[in-house]
Amino acid sequence: MIIDMHGHTNAPPSLYAYKSRLLASRGAHGKGAPNISEEAMAAQVKNHLENNLDKVGTDVQFLSPRPFQLMHSEKPERIVHWFAEACNNAIATSVKLAPTRYRGVAGLPQCSGVPIQNTFDEIDRCINDLGFVGIMINPDPYEGSGTPTPGMGDEYWFPLYEKMIQMDIPALIHSASCKDPWDTYSNYFITTETRTIISMVSSRTFDTFPNLKIIVSHGGGAVPYQIGRYRAFFGRHFAETGGFDVELKKFYFDSVLYNVEGLDLLYRIVGTDRCMFGTENPGTGTYKDPKTGKMLDDLKPEIESISWMTDQDRKNVFEDVTRKVFPRFKD
Amino acid sequence: MIIDMHGHTNAPPSLYAYKSRLLASRGAHGKGAPNISEEAMAAQVKNHLENNLDKVGTDVQFLSPRPFQLMHSEKPERIVHWFAEACNNAIATSVKLAPTRYRGVAGLPQCSGVPIQNTFDEIDRCINDLGFVGIMINPDPYEGSGTPTPGMGDEYWFPLYEKMIQMDIPALIHSASCKDPWDTYSNYFITTETRTIISMVSSRTFDTFPNLKIIVSHGGGAVPYQIGRYRAFFGRHFAETGGFDVELKKFYFDSVLYNVEGLDLLYRIVGTDRCMFGTENPGTGTYKDPKTGKMLDDLKPEIESISWMTDQDRKNVFEDVTRKVFPRFKD
Amino acid sequence: MIIDMHGHTNAPPSLYAYKSRLLASRGAHGKGAPNISEEAMAAQVKNHLENNLDKVGTDVQFLSPRPFQLMHSEKPERIVHWFAEACNNAIATSVKLAPTRYRGVAGLPQCSGVPIQNTFDEIDRCINDLGFVGIMINPDPYEGSGTPTPGMGDEYWFPLYEKMIQMDIPALIHSASCKDPWDTYSNYFITTETRTIISMVSSRTFDTFPNLKIIVSHGGGAVPYQIGRYRAFFGRHFAETGGFDVELKKFYFDSVLYNVEGLDLLYRIVGTDRCMFGTENPGTGTYKDPKTGKMLDDLKPEIESISWMTDQDRKNVFEDVTRKVFPRFKD
Amino acid sequence: MIIDMHGHTNAPPSLYAYKSRLLASRGAHGKGAPNISEEAMAAQVKNHLENNLDKVGTDVQFLSPRPFQLMHSEKPERIVHWFAEACNNAIATSVKLAPTRYRGVAGLPQCSGVPIQNTFDEIDRCINDLGFVGIMINPDPYEGSGTPTPGMGDEYWFPLYEKMIQMDIPALIHSASCKDPWDTYSNYFITTETRTIISMVSSRTFDTFPNLKIIVSHGGGAVPYQIGRYRAFFGRHFAETGGFDVELKKFYFDSVLYNVEGLDLLYRIVGTDRCMFGTENPGTGTYKDPKTGKMLDDLKPEIESISWMTDQDRKNVFEDVTRKVFPRFKD
Amino acid sequence: MIIDMHGHTNAPPSLYAYKSRLLASRGAHGKGAPNISEEAMAAQVKNHLENNLDKVGTDVQFLSPRPFQLMHSEKPERIVHWFAEACNNAIATSVKLAPTRYRGVAGLPQCSGVPIQNTFDEIDRCINDLGFVGIMINPDPYEGSGTPTPGMGDEYWFPLYEKMIQMDIPALIHSASCKDPWDTYSNYFITTETRTIISMVSSRTFDTFPNLKIIVSHGGGAVPYQIGRYRAFFGRHFAETGGFDVELKKFYFDSVLYNVEGLDLLYRIVGTDRCMFGTENPGTGTYKDPKTGKMLDDLKPEIESISWMTDQDRKNVFEDVTRKVFPRFKD
Amino acid sequence: MIIDMHGHTNAPPSLYAYKSRLLASRGAHGKGAPNISEEAMAAQVKNHLENNLDKVGTDVQFLSPRPFQLMHSEKPERIVHWFAEACNNAIATSVKLAPTRYRGVAGLPQCSGVPIQNTFDEIDRCINDLGFVGIMINPDPYEGSGTPTPGMGDEYWFPLYEKMIQMDIPALIHSASCKDPWDTYSNYFITTETRTIISMVSSRTFDTFPNLKIIVSHGGGAVPYQIGRYRAFFGRHFAETGGFDVELKKFYFDSVLYNVEGLDLLYRIVGTDRCMFGTENPGTGTYKDPKTGKMLDDLKPEIESISWMTDQDRKNVFEDVTRKVFPRFKD
Repeated sequence: MIIDMHGHTNAPPSLYAYKSRLLASRGAHGKGAPNISEEAMAAQVKNHLENNLDKVGTDVQFLSPRPFQLMHSEKPERIVHWFAEACNNAIATSVKLAPTRYRGVAGLPQCSGVPIQNTFDEIDRCINDLGFVGIMINPDPYEGSGTPTPGMGDEYWFPLYEKMIQMDIPALIHSASCKDPWDTYSNYFITTETRTIISMVSSRTFDTFPNLKIIVSHGGGAVPYQIGRYRAFFGRHFAETGGFDVELKKFYFDSVLYNVEGLDLLYRIVGTDRCMFGTENPGTGTYKDPKTGKMLDDLKPEIESISWMTDQDRKNVFEDVTRKVFPRFKD
Repeated sequence: MIIDMHGHTNAPPSLYAYKSRLLASRGAHGKGAPNISEEAMAAQVKNHLENNLDKVGTDVQFLSPRPFQLMHSEKPERIVHWFAEACNNAIATSVKLAPTRYRGVAGLPQCSGVPIQNTFDEIDRCINDLGFVGIMINPDPYEGSGTPTPGMGDEYWFPLYEKMIQMDIPALIHSASCKDPWDTYSNYFITTETRTIISMVSSRTFDTFPNLKIIVSHGGGAVPYQIGRYRAFFGRHFAETGGFDVELKKFYFDSVLYNVEGLDLLYRIVGTDRCMFGTENPGTGTYKDPKTGKMLDDLKPEIESISWMTDQDRKNVFEDVTRKVFPRFKD
Repeated sequence: MIIDMHGHTNAPPSLYAYKSRLLASRGAHGKGAPNISEEAMAAQVKNHLENNLDKVGTDVQFLSPRPFQLMHSEKPERIVHWFAEACNNAIATSVKLAPTRYRGVAGLPQCSGVPIQNTFDEIDRCINDLGFVGIMINPDPYEGSGTPTPGMGDEYWFPLYEKMIQMDIPALIHSASCKDPWDTYSNYFITTETRTIISMVSSRTFDTFPNLKIIVSHGGGAVPYQIGRYRAFFGRHFAETGGFDVELKKFYFDSVLYNVEGLDLLYRIVGTDRCMFGTENPGTGTYKDPKTGKMLDDLKPEIESISWMTDQDRKNVFEDVTRKVFPRFKD
Repeated sequence: MIIDMHGHTNAPPSLYAYKSRLLASRGAHGKGAPNISEEAMAAQVKNHLENNLDKVGTDVQFLSPRPFQLMHSEKPERIVHWFAEACNNAIATSVKLAPTRYRGVAGLPQCSGVPIQNTFDEIDRCINDLGFVGIMINPDPYEGSGTPTPGMGDEYWFPLYEKMIQMDIPALIHSASCKDPWDTYSNYFITTETRTIISMVSSRTFDTFPNLKIIVSHGGGAVPYQIGRYRAFFGRHFAETGGFDVELKKFYFDSVLYNVEGLDLLYRIVGTDRCMFGTENPGTGTYKDPKTGKMLDDLKPEIESISWMTDQDRKNVFEDVTRKVFPRFKD
Repeated sequence: MIIDMHGHTNAPPSLYAYKSRLLASRGAHGKGAPNISEEAMAAQVKNHLENNLDKVGTDVQFLSPRPFQLMHSEKPERIVHWFAEACNNAIATSVKLAPTRYRGVAGLPQCSGVPIQNTFDEIDRCINDLGFVGIMINPDPYEGSGTPTPGMGDEYWFPLYEKMIQMDIPALIHSASCKDPWDTYSNYFITTETRTIISMVSSRTFDTFPNLKIIVSHGGGAVPYQIGRYRAFFGRHFAETGGFDVELKKFYFDSVLYNVEGLDLLYRIVGTDRCMFGTENPGTGTYKDPKTGKMLDDLKPEIESISWMTDQDRKNVFEDVTRKVFPRFKD
Repeated sequence: MIIDMHGHTNAPPSLYAYKSRLLASRGAHGKGAPNISEEAMAAQVKNHLENNLDKVGTDVQFLSPRPFQLMHSEKPERIVHWFAEACNNAIATSVKLAPTRYRGVAGLPQCSGVPIQNTFDEIDRCINDLGFVGIMINPDPYEGSGTPTPGMGDEYWFPLYEKMIQMDIPALIHSASCKDPWDTYSNYFITTETRTIISMVSSRTFDTFPNLKIIVSHGGGAVPYQIGRYRAFFGRHFAETGGFDVELKKFYFDSVLYNVEGLDLLYRIVGTDRCMFGTENPGTGTYKDPKTGKMLDDLKPEIESISWMTDQDRKNVFEDVTRKVFPRFKD
């Protein structure tokens, strides 16, 4: 079975027109609703299944909200909550329309400058009521606007980690938009993923939460490629416990890298038993390489082309690790 | 002829999903386009003509962008420009689809903290290329976020006033969103309209620009109702030139007040020769009063119910003043 | 009996020289005193009675501190307290000098950024020791300097509301100075009054405090004139309970409008049973209209000229509502 | 002849009530006037001459505005100008009422964050029209509110220095209020005087403006007492030109120290040929020492008690240096 | 015996290279160590004893960290702690190498914006483990960077005062660096010492903590020289208890003034029973006066040259007061 | 010949004690000097040659200042200049002591918030007077303190690019310290290198400056590993000109990656003709892997172990590309 654990909401424009209205009114009209028609939603799902999943042979895709749309740095807090709910609802509808093909991963209504516990009601709703299988965490709800967010190894996040362990749900690390005028949201993903790993390793977060399951998107940012630097940096402190590699292998990683050299390096460095198949299809990588004519996010053939990987390595990536990390995923 | 000079874009959700995408990407994907289909647009126009204009007997409506959507305080500047253009384009399409029923009033790509001249290219495009008949000015592109914008009587605005006079176009004063956590955009309209009048009167702007045509939305904010206060306040300074009333009558006003007592007071205070019919239909006032069963924005019967008004008074409001102020409006 | 419930301190320049000294020293000299001589005070009172009250037929005037002088945004907090006390003391002296003609309304030593409870000692002193009949609240102790003050519907104010109910005293809503470089204090009164109503209606404050008595100065800011807008805006949410009009009629209003059209509209919209006579004489309206030769704040004849008002309507305004709202006022 | 070159405005409370009104209105009422009656002013002058000057044997006193009242950090700029003008006018009236006993020293309408040239019109008015003999400079128009003002050796001040030399007028260094919550204006005088000397010495300002005449109030702040520290600090850099003492003796100093040990030290360190008699009577020092029964600001006997001083030393202090530094002072 | 109670660490460059590394890494490398070799340290001590203490006849010097190096305003807090510990350790090494000649005074790891209690562990370590005899307090851990630190009379400092009394240790008041671009650290010492006295006198801190022992460096800043000003300012408030002089004599002072006129004034004003010998040798005053050829910090001959001082006066300064204030100092 | 183009100053602690002193005094003592003795310097060089270069077979190393020490965000600007000069001088001394083994790469005295031209004098001095062969640019002189620095594709940098081309010198991109409390300087290197590439590609900087030579440290940050993401992101815009790969190959890269998988990926993605040998020995990578017993920065054997590389590939990396990019390097 091919499980693509990194996909995002497919929804008609009404969902984002709703967001636009929330931002324009700053919530003055009350919660309202995105008014997504059933037909529009069904058309989206049908199209997505046919043109994105079936074409590349994906059996199941996990859907989380489009991260860069989540507007975590906007105020007042209620509009962030309302929009996160609307996104999660749209995902729930997709799952309902094609229950064998989708699973939900909850986007959190994170807000800059407030306790992480404010997201718990929506986690409960998504996991318990909507049947979602995991959550997605934005390591910087300030969205690169200049105020530093506590690192992922800081106590700010501990109540969330406790809740994740208690509910046995993993989290996908994925930042949202980026308001730094000299950066882009897409590049900021990589920065924040790298920082997440470094912060959690520095703070020895897994010593406190050994059962915590953190999946770092996009192949772990810059870390596997730059691992020599971190081996040296942390080796001095953690030599006795096995060094940086031991710590790094406490994280999980997806395969949203879009180039075979990167995937090859990732699997060599962290091992296939920490990696999961993910494509974000359709998303950033939905681009046809003019030279090869292939879609960059059609990653299955790329993975299959890595000659040193065993069948179990591939099964790890395509199915086993995901099943292990997401115990709420049942066929 | 009944001319409603205060209407806003009717557009399918795609327009606002486009805005949402610009905000999420902060322009990193380039300009792109809202992808509004011709069918969607035609359906909108048809529906609007039938259910909004025809029902209440409006012959022509002037369309400007939905003000609260214009996101003037967002950065980088280019996404503000792109969205303003998209809104103006949607209006141009409406006008093209129903050329006898609509005219365009350009939304400006105003940005907080930059010269007003940055809007001039879009003014030229709208007036010269798209055939629009006026513009809409937001007196606070910071959108209530705490940094004070120069008052409308300040030199900051003078290049725009010169351009308006040179092109013989009037401007509708209408603020956008409001980020003050304790206010609402709708209420902020009234605040900024009041402040516009006070700032321009204080600075004696019309002494410098006697041919400037400024239309204050929503019946002039609080000014006509509170006129005694301003008569006293300014009377001490301007007594020799006729006092506050003389200054006030250099502005124009629309009738977007939604209650007959307010309209009555407005016409008494400023005279029907400074007032124009406007409804914002559909908009804030599109609400059926549960007691009367009437739509609040169906203002024509309200105006016709004011017994002291002469036929010419009514013609002033419904047609003549608008024709005079908008010379680019031709049948 | 004609009761003018909106008058302000008459005091010799020494009171304001005291304020000036507090600001210059920032309290470094200790509390000190304004050193108002008894003769100076007696002369002020005599002059005020003769030239302001007697001339227009006012029997009793309620005196509160000159709002725009209260310097609530200044620091340190103690100088704000000292000056508020001095103002209230000057009022107490007036009342003592002419006990049948004056009553005191306490100015509060509100300070930006501190709990509202810090004003309670002064409230107790004024009501219990000095025999005042009510208080005056500034909805924005930041005085328009850019930091948003919690809206009047926010919990920040609840301890004060509880205290008011417990002591059975009403509050006059009246802002102080305005430091926004593009606004004026006089205009900011209107803005903050409007916002007070909108904030309290939005938060349904009167559901929590049904016995709270709030008097909105200057005829309610912009609200009665713009009521159509708010009927539509709130009607969607409160339709079941009677809509915006029902909520609006939970407030009280004064008549400091200075023009008969405004008064007429106010009484029609909210009813004379929510309105009180007030003139702020001498104050903003103490201006002789060059055309009519009448003082703008001589409002009694204006009110008497509204033909549709019954005797009871006028008695409501001139006496009955004030008596009802200020139970501590006894002849 | 005894010339006391450091006195401040004596004015009735109306002057400060005017300031209070300017702050309350932020200039919204226009310039207005302090409305000081001639009688009040004459009474002040008479009282001051009798009880302050005659009693201690002062022949002539130079009057500058009360520094701590000058509100240089307030906005908008126009209210700072208006109040400085009013203070200077009050001084001019004193001089007019007692032309043999007073001379004027102009307070400058300095404003934080604007060019020093904005004060030039008022300098011209005071020197040329009102016949004043010098000016008073506040080294920190931000009044200790946290934003650093360029040091007195910085180019910011050079246009003023050029003007002073061109008009042949000296300046008294004297800060105004202090908004630092943990300091007092009175103590801040000393801090800013010390910093003025250090900044100008560090920048070698007198190399650029050898004819500049700067009088440091209150005996030069902390510098004469701490001179060892500065001799060491600057000696390393300026040894070749004579060290810190040579630089220090390019300044002038007044005698507003209120204790004989301080005066003794001052005259020893800087020499009597750089020192002038000043008392600020009435002011800070107008305090009767409970042990001695003497007024602290009665400095003449104190100076006369310093046994090592020659007649010429005393004449330097009481008359000659002041005559030399203020060439516009004529009998 | 000559006890110089104001000396600072002598350490090889490695100590400051360590600081530089902490600032560069912001603590990312962990605590590390300054790696000061024993030989380097011994050479420093030998040289200091021979060339600084022996030459001028000092028997014992108390060493505290070089204040301007303490970087209290830097973040994160841990690097401030680590460097303070390293400085104190270097002092402890000096004391160990020459136990009859040195004593330690602990530099505190003060950090801007955190409770003063965060320094307690280091106080305990220095006093209890390293045998130090007192502590040094920086009144402004923000180091002049614009945010005001609570005055020394504020409750912020009370826990420290309680601890000092409980442990019977005195504190030397001495600020660190100064980030104000228009000031210097050396001058800021004087400013903050002056402010310390004024703040504690204003707050009557010694009423609450009568046994608190505070030593103000550099002869008390500007206070003794400007005492007339403070006598007047505080006399009005404290006359009944003896006035400012009584309050001032609750502090102790050192003699780091570098000029005999200043010392003479200091001893006259506060009495020799509140003064201690201190030189900061080597430090700011280690400068040879080109005229006299004497080192400015060779203060013993200067003090001995003051003719009015008795033998006991000199013994007070050179030995007795220090012994009394530092009871943990034993021969 | 083996040329290691990425080494940093070796200097005795005095250099950093000098920095520490500059920060403590904020320049108040003047420029001063680090006082590095010739012996200390010679010992450093001898040790470095023997233990770092000779041991691993490096023939020549290019030395630039230790980046994380450069304190570009500190104020005032002059201390940043003085320290950069001292670092460059220390490098010049090394080169002088071992002219066949070292070359200098100038650290720039970049300061946050000032024009890049302020660094030109030091560039001239280093290249023309000291014979250095290139420069090092910090893309973020604010050092991660929250204020965004213009991206490397912004016009802010153009004068520097013009100067580099005119002088025919390349620049090594390398950030300095990082003040973000949740990041580390070492990790921030990677972030800023990635952003440099993205900014310059987005702005098409090489279209304007085709001869500009930019070397991105540490193997290009995250870019080669994440190249699929950027191919997709930029492919849409630059497809016609060859896409992201063509743009990426306009940069040069060093080999400071410390793990063979990373080096392998780098050479595959960008080609050996854009890569240079660099080790930063001694530096971050000077760490002995406990498992292998090898030093992580001994990269030559790692590179030689990549089996697919040809002799020319290795010669490219070890010598040819460096010679081509640094034309001022002569044997």
